[in-house]
Formats: sequence, structure tokens, C-alpha cells
Amino acid sequence: MLSLSDLRSENRPDADNWKDKVYQIIFEADTPAGKFFDICLIFCILASVTVVMLCSVNSINAEYHTILWSLEWFFTLLFTVEYILRMICVRNKMKYATSFFGIIDLLAVIPTYLTIFLPGGQYLMVIRILRLLRIFRVLKLVQYLQEVDLLMRAMKDSSRKIIVFFFAVINLVILLGSVMYVIEGDGNGFTSIPTSIYWAIITLTTVGYGDIVPITPMGKAVASIIMILGYSIIALPTGIVTHSIIKITEDDKEKEIEVREETHEVVLNIGCPECGFAGHDIDARYCKFCGTELKPINFED
Amino acid sequence: MLSLSDLRSENRPDADNWKDKVYQIIFEADTPAGKFFDICLIFCILASVTVVMLCSVNSINAEYHTILWSLEWFFTLLFTVEYILRMICVRNKMKYATSFFGIIDLLAVIPTYLTIFLPGGQYLMVIRILRLLRIFRVLKLVQYLQEVDLLMRAMKDSSRKIIVFFFAVINLVILLGSVMYVIEGDGNGFTSIPTSIYWAIITLTTVGYGDIVPITPMGKAVASIIMILGYSIIALPTGIVTHSIIKITEDDKEKEIEVREETHEVVLNIGCPECGFAGHDIDARYCKFCGTELKPINFED
Amino acid sequence: MLSLSDLRSENRPDADNWKDKVYQIIFEADTPAGKFFDICLIFCILASVTVVMLCSVNSINAEYHTILWSLEWFFTLLFTVEYILRMICVRNKMKYATSFFGIIDLLAVIPTYLTIFLPGGQYLMVIRILRLLRIFRVLKLVQYLQEVDLLMRAMKDSSRKIIVFFFAVINLVILLGSVMYVIEGDGNGFTSIPTSIYWAIITLTTVGYGDIVPITPMGKAVASIIMILGYSIIALPTGIVTHSIIKITEDDKEKEIEVREETHEVVLNIGCPECGFAGHDIDARYCKFCGTELKPINFED
Amino acid sequence: MLSLSDLRSENRPDADNWKDKVYQIIFEADTPAGKFFDICLIFCILASVTVVMLCSVNSINAEYHTILWSLEWFFTLLFTVEYILRMICVRNKMKYATSFFGIIDLLAVIPTYLTIFLPGGQYLMVIRILRLLRIFRVLKLVQYLQEVDLLMRAMKDSSRKIIVFFFAVINLVILLGSVMYVIEGDGNGFTSIPTSIYWAIITLTTVGYGDIVPITPMGKAVASIIMILGYSIIALPTGIVTHSIIKITEDDKEKEIEVREETHEVVLNIGCPECGFAGHDIDARYCKFCGTELKPINFED
Repeated sequence: MLSLSDLRSENRPDADNWKDKVYQIIFEADTPAGKFFDICLIFCILASVTVVMLCSVNSINAEYHTILWSLEWFFTLLFTVEYILRMICVRNKMKYATSFFGIIDLLAVIPTYLTIFLPGGQYLMVIRILRLLRIFRVLKLVQYLQEVDLLMRAMKDSSRKIIVFFFAVINLVILLGSVMYVIEGDGNGFTSIPTSIYWAIITLTTVGYGDIVPITPMGKAVASIIMILGYSIIALPTGIVTHSIIKITEDDKEKEIEVREETHEVVLNIGCPECGFAGHDIDARYCKFCGTELKPINFED
Repeated sequence: MLSLSDLRSENRPDADNWKDKVYQIIFEADTPAGKFFDICLIFCILASVTVVMLCSVNSINAEYHTILWSLEWFFTLLFTVEYILRMICVRNKMKYATSFFGIIDLLAVIPTYLTIFLPGGQYLMVIRILRLLRIFRVLKLVQYLQEVDLLMRAMKDSSRKIIVFFFAVINLVILLGSVMYVIEGDGNGFTSIPTSIYWAIITLTTVGYGDIVPITPMGKAVASIIMILGYSIIALPTGIVTHSIIKITEDDKEKEIEVREETHEVVLNIGCPECGFAGHDIDARYCKFCGTELKPINFED
Repeated sequence: MLSLSDLRSENRPDADNWKDKVYQIIFEADTPAGKFFDICLIFCILASVTVVMLCSVNSINAEYHTILWSLEWFFTLLFTVEYILRMICVRNKMKYATSFFGIIDLLAVIPTYLTIFLPGGQYLMVIRILRLLRIFRVLKLVQYLQEVDLLMRAMKDSSRKIIVFFFAVINLVILLGSVMYVIEGDGNGFTSIPTSIYWAIITLTTVGYGDIVPITPMGKAVASIIMILGYSIIALPTGIVTHSIIKITEDDKEKEIEVREETHEVVLNIGCPECGFAGHDIDARYCKFCGTELKPINFED
Repeated sequence: MLSLSDLRSENRPDADNWKDKVYQIIFEADTPAGKFFDICLIFCILASVTVVMLCSVNSINAEYHTILWSLEWFFTLLFTVEYILRMICVRNKMKYATSFFGIIDLLAVIPTYLTIFLPGGQYLMVIRILRLLRIFRVLKLVQYLQEVDLLMRAMKDSSRKIIVFFFAVINLVILLGSVMYVIEGDGNGFTSIPTSIYWAIITLTTVGYGDIVPITPMGKAVASIIMILGYSIIALPTGIVTHSIIKITEDDKEKEIEVREETHEVVLNIGCPECGFAGHDIDARYCKFCGTELKPINFED
């Protein structure tokens, strides 16, 4: 069997270019350098998010403000360098900049620079937390892509049914909330229809905070019905998703057998040279985001 | 392939009558005018329900009372005109007036007129919220009818088992509630058997408000058992519904193959000319509510 | 097709005996008189349980004490007469008296008589509520026996796995509760290990009363883990039961086809003449409680 | 069919050695003495854990301190003797001492001895509770191993998907918690991002303590979305596990048929003579922990 590095040199004649080398390290995970970069990136993202979190705890922020702020700037500069490198080595720069991860990569660094000019760091803090999403781009490292794919497809397959279910639930809580508003009234915490709807959601989803509770016997009776209803209708989304997972897995098994019989050709699961997306399906021939052909490698040769 | 408008002119020779034109716009969704009407209707229903909700919030009602009340009367007059038009263009007026949506359409306008003569608008408010249900009649617009149908059939298929489950749950909460009444007694919030049953429902459904909680060690032990019980028996309705969804989908697949082999004739999914119901099954030959024959259209011609 | 009454006269030559007539009315539901009796019994049981519940509400008991107490004695005397009649007309009296429903029938009347001699009616109240269980004997009336049977078999089939799950859950809450006792300590409501276990059950089952909540950051972290754990492991019993329901239904379908091919003989689903149990399986040849042969009736004759 | 004792004498020529006899009693459950030992052990473990629990209840500890402490020392000495016996009779002592149960067995006795030298019994109490885990080693007695095995395999089979789900949930609560921190702010209980994340977990898992609740209308709206989200996404792990259980059971059925056709040889399910692990798979030929060959017994001889 051929090693990955052999295949690469064969299929990418321009791999000695320094931009392509950086590209391989930053966007792909199948070279030792690429893997090491990804592990460092995960560590930096987690550390950086932890710093943002600790900043929000008053007692910790008061004591370690300087250290936390230094770390914040350290990570921001690091991510800035990374963003610039990504920009340089990607062929289609516009596609990257406007892609989901391109925007997330930018949002990871912007807020810290803005704090120099703007007060109200609290609102910027949430944007800084968004850098957590960058961890999903490193997901290609861990070999969990197949599971993610299955769950995504199960959710997509069942999404229309789930939407219908949601639509029914929303109507239900509006109607039941309104009924409770009339039954309980202003004095017992059900101050308005929106508040009553909020209570109905708390009850139907079996969250049950207890900040608003029915007081009148009639209200308790209606609440009991909502609770038992909520306890039962949860069966619907569960049934929908379970069915989807079973269906998809069975379809996959059949397709897999067909594919095995038909072809011996396997596409190497490398990052797209145009937009940088890694994690294509095993049978993908074109990048599903920018349409660039992924060079198939026939191991039979 | 024939377009919908071609088919219509062919099958409804009296379509140039103005009543039939209004009928097509109001009751059906397959002409541009009908689609536009439905979208306007959805917007009006949602806006109108929002107005009712905002009316119930004291602070908002105090400030914007005149605007809200004007909007309320605007929507009421709009819905009144719509109701009258529906009444005029439907062939069987009695059937429409006594149908589910006929009553809902009427209830959408009555309460506002009643507020002129009657005080106690709070109780009328809930009836006004019922106009939300009118949104279900426009569901035919969005192509989610198949999903609704599947969920309805899954619920119907599993309804008998769910009723048995409910019956057992109700018996369980009555018995466990009574036991807790004796264990905890009047002093710890378990003031009567109905209150204790209410607590048992809160606990079994895992809602857990926390307004009534066991105090004695014995009570806590029984509460623990109820919680673990409630946590486990939720598996039953879920299992029932999951099984129903799997069964129905499999049956459908088999039936679909049979139908495809047997017939090439397709019934156009238009509203019933008698009672106005749209959203018949693809293989329906008669309106399932009033029995009027739905003219089948053979695309083979 | 033969009517039920024809079959009965044919198979029970001693049906003209008055005891057997009473037996048919009380224990069976397939004669008009038997059906009427069952409906009356359901009404009496529900009314009687409602009376017990209302007695426990202080405000209602204070005002309507005499009426409620008269009704209580009325139902007690009624159930006493019914119990005596059941005793007389059942052939094997000992078997009935020691059967589940025999004991429940007795417990339905004893407590009211005891209140004459004994104070502390509160404890007897719970026993009086037990008469609710008698409603299960009338379940044969409504045609839900098949659904009950399926759910019972699903629970039986999955019981061993559910027990293993429970065993793991109990061990989990004991360990996690103990850990939280050490983390949070006496001052934050976690006063002892049993209390901490009680809290762990509340949290793991997602009930979440909020009477005991973690205060320390470490405690909150552990609580978060328990919550996510509880949120996830609920999938296990659900999966077990869903699998059982699917398996049982499939097995039934196969068995049904086999039975149809093998035999044309059907056993009439009547009450057992020995112990009075009704609701035998369609293919039962002997009463599953006392072993008395149920006379099979061949419709082919 | 050969009885177990016959087989044993045949296969273990050195069974008259006293160490081997002790080994059979302590590590195996298929002799009367072994069964009796296991039942005693279960009783001692449960009694000992109960003593630890009662020690933590202040009121009980104050009154019965001497009795509880005596019992604690009694069980500790008992477990010490047991540990020494296990050490003596196991062939590979190092393997036992470093095995999971070897460590648990040691941890069951150490803490009580430490309390002589060290204060702070509260922390040692949790370690003493760990002896509860020893009950899992006696699980081989009850014939539930097959169910445990199925659940373990279902969890293993679905673990990768569940990890992906967890990863998504953790990201979700971090993002939603941060958003709520900005919306609600310090004054309404959302004092820091970690606290807000803790609240998001409480809400998403539908636990709903009610110790922190949103106050602002915007916060309530976001909370409603989280609740409905949490109510729905629980369908994913449930679907995953249900699918795994169905798949595993079907695979087992197929494998079982194959095994039956292929072979008549059965391996006796006895404890491994090296490391003492009992509960091997029916088709195991080597101990899965230390690799010692388990002597197969051909019933055909």
C-alpha cells in the first residue's frame, strides 16, 4: 500500500512551493506537520475560550486581570497571524473570506482589536466566544466524520417532520398559555399572555423552573394535562429521528455493497485545493462547496 | 406535462363565474392569486394574534392602547369580509358553517364585536387567540402535508396503546399521590389528595416545579421511586410511537410500489368544490368530509 | 355466524341456575346485563374514589362532611353486597378470596367499617383509594385487552435489561451523591449522604425540584455532568423498550400467519368458571390462573 | 449431561489443593460454597455501605456512633481477611493487585485504617462508598450477564455517535450560555459566563432547578428556544441507542444460527485460573484480560 506522502508528491507536482506547504500544514491533517498544527490549534482555541470565560468571573478578573488580558492579546495575535497565512496560501481568496469558517476565523480576532476603540466589552465577549466554533474545522483530525455525517443526514431526513412537530408545539403552547392566562390571571404570576406562553413552554418541555406555578385548582388541573401531554408528545420527535437513523443506516449498507461491487477506485480524502474544505465523502469526486475536481487516485495502479 | 391552469379550465367549465373565481382564490392554493391570498392570510393571522398578545401585556397596553385597538378592529373587519366571501362562494353553505374551520373562522371575528356589549374582555381574549388555528387551513400552501399525514397516522395507529399507557399513568399518580398524602401530611404542603396527585404528576413527568417537595425521609424515598419510575416509563410511549412510524413508513413503501404498478391515473390535489377542504390524499377519489367526487385527471390522455 | 348467547346455552347446560346467571352478570361482559353491570361498576368506583379525594380537601370536607360521609357509606354497602354476591356465585371460593382482585374487592370495603372502631382515618383513606384498582377488572369491557397485552409483554421482555439499567442507575446515584456530599458539604443543603443521593436522583432523572442546589463551582461542575449524563442515559431504557415492541409485533405477525394456516378452531373469550378471570388469550385452552379447561368452540360445526 | 462438579474434577487435577478450593469459593460461583460466599459478600457490601451512609446523617451518628463505628471496623476486618485470601489463592498476584477489582478491593479497606492516623473522615467516606462497586464482581451470580453484555455493546456501538452529540451539546451550551450572559447580565443571577453555561445545561437537559431564571423578555425568549431545543435533540441519543440495540440483537441472532450450525463444542463458563475473572463469553477460548487458555469441554465425548 502506498503511504500518503508518496501519493501527495505524485499528485501535486507544485508541492515544493512554500505556499502549498503552508496550505498542507494549515488546511490538511494528513501530514505530521498538519496534525501537529491542528493539535496546537485545538489547544489554543480551548485556552483562548477559557480565558474569555474567566474574564467574565468578577472575582477572578479582579485578581488576574493583567495575566488574562495578556493571554487574550497573545491568542488574538496568534489567530491574526494564522488568518493572514490562511489568506495567503488559499488559491481562491474571496471564496475563503466569505465561507463560514472564513468569517468565523475573522470574528475570532476582530473583537479584541475593537476593545481598543470601543467600550462595552461585554457584548464583544460573546463574539470572542464564537471562536469556539473554529474547533469544528479541526474535527477532520479526529476520525469522527462518518458519525457527524450520519447524524447530520438523520437530522436532515427528519427535519420536515420535526418542523411540523415544532409548528404544532408552538401553536399548542400559545393556545394553552392563553387559556392559563384567563384561568390564573394577573395575580398568580401569569401577568400577560407572553408570560403564560413562556410558562407553558417551561411546563410542556418538562423543564419546570418553578418561578411561575399555577395556584388555582383549575389552573393546576390544566397544568397537569400540559405536563402529561409534554411527557407523551416527546415520543414523536424521538420516533421520527430513530426511524431516520435506522433508515439511513440500512440504505448505507445497501449502497456500500453496490459501491464495493462496482468500483475499486478510491478518492483520497484530502482538502480541496480551492476553498480549503477537508472532510469530503469517500466517494466524492468534486468539492461539494466550490466544485473543484478532487483528483481520484486508483490504488490498482 | 400539463400545467395546473390548463387542467382547471378543462375540468371546471363554470370557472368563469365570479363566485368560482373567488372560491379558487380563497379555498385553493394552486393559482398565483390563491397563493398570494394565503400568504396575506398567514401574515394577517400572525399579526392579529401578536396584537392580542401585546394587548395582554399591561405596560404595552397602557402606552399603545389606541394603536392596538385600531389594529384589532382592522383585522376583525378584514376577517369578517373574508368570512362573508367564503360563505358566498361555497356551494354547500351549511356544511361550511358547521365544519371545524367554519366555526373557527366565525370565532375569529365574534369576540371583538361582543366587547362592545360585554365587559370582561379577558375571557374573550382567549377566543380571539383561537384564530391562530386558522393558520392550519393555510398549511396546504407549504408542501408539508405528507409529513403531517405521517405524524397523524402514527398518532392514530398508536393511540389505543397510548390511551392504555395514560390510563395506567393516571391510576399510578392517584395511588402514589394518595400514599404521599398519608406519608407527608398536611403540614408539608401535601394539603389534600388532589394536591398530592398534582405533585405526583409534576414528579412523574419529571417537570419538578419545586413548589411542593417532600420533607420527611420516607417521603423523599417514595419521591425517589416515583422519579426513577417516571424516568423509565417514558420509554413506553416513545417505543410505541417509534414502532408506529417505522411500521407506517414500511407499509407506505410497499403500497407505493403496488400503486405504481397498478395505475397511471392521478387525482389532482385540489380543494373540494362542496365543503372547501383542500389536502386530500393523492389516491382520494371522494372528499373525505362531504363525499363529493373529486374529478380524476388521467395524464395518459 | 353463531351469536354469543347461542353458544353459551350450548356449552353451559347449567346456565339456568341463578348462581350461574349472577356469575355471568358479575364476572363476564358479553351479555347485555353483564355489560350494564360493568358500566355501573365503573361509575360507582370512580364516584367512590372522587368522594374519598374530596374528603381529603379540608375546605370541602368542612362544608359537605355529612353528604360525603353518606355517599361513602352508600358505596361501601354497595361494594359489600357485590363482594358477597361474587363470593356466592364463584365455584372455587378460596381461589377467588386469595386472588389479586379478591383481595382488592375486600380491601375496598373493610376500611370504612374499621373507621367505626378506629381513629386515624387518614391511613385508612389510602386503602380506600385502592378500590381504584378494581377498575382494571372491568378493563375487559373496553376492547383494549390486546394493547394491554402488548405493553405487558414488551415490559416483560425488556424487564431483565431494565433491571440491569436500574441497578447501574442506583449505583451511579449513590456514588455521585456521595461525591457531592464531600464537595458541597453540610452548609449548602447536602446535609448527609442519603440527602445527597436524593439530590442526585432529582438531577439525574431531570426532575430538578430546586430545593437542594449546588453552590460551589466544583459542585456545579459535577451537577452539570450528572445532568448531561441523565439526559443521555434515558436513551437506554427507551431503546430497550422500542426494540421489545418492534420484536414482539413482528413475532406476533409471524405467529398469526402460522396459526391461521394451522387451525380454524377459536376459543370463546369468556370468563373462567372456576376463578372468574376473564380476558384469556385467543389461543388459550386452559385458564392461566387456575388451569380449568376453557371449552373450545369450533365454528366449523 | 455432566454435572459441573464432575467436569471440574476432570479438568482441574490439582483441585484438592486448599488454595484452589479457596479460589473456587471466592472467585467462582458455580459450587454451593461459592454461591453461599457470594450471597454473604453481597449482604456484607450492602450492610457496610448502609453503615457509611448512616454515619453521614448527623442525628443518627450522634446517637448510634459506637454501634456504627464497631460495625464499620467489623466489615473492614472482614474485607481485609477476604483481600488477603484473594491474594493468597490467585496464581498471578501482580495481575490481580493491579486489576480494576483488585484496586477496588484494596480501597474498600484502606480508608478505615487511615482514619486512625488522619482526620477529615469526610473525604475518606467517599472512598469507603466505593466498595459498592465490589457488588459488580458478584454480578456473575445472578444470570443477568447477557443483558449487561447487550447494553455494554449497545453503548460501545453508539459511543462514537454519542461523543459527537456530546461535543455538539457542549458547544451549544457554551454559546447559548454566553449569549444569555450578555442578555440578562450580572443583576439577574447570570453573574458570569460559566454560571450562564451552568444555567444553559440546566435548561437544555430539562432539569430546570429554578435557582437561576431569566427575567428580561429577551432572556425568556432565548430560554424558550433552548427549552424546545433541549426537548427535541434528546431524540438524537435515543435514536442512536435504539438503532444500536436493534442492530446488535439482529447480528446476534444471525451469528447464533451460524454458531449452532458450525460447532457443538461449548466452553465452560468458569473463572480464569490466572486473574480470577469470571463471566467470559460463551464462545471465549482465552481469558480476555490475561490471555490464559480456558479449557474447552466437548460435551460430545
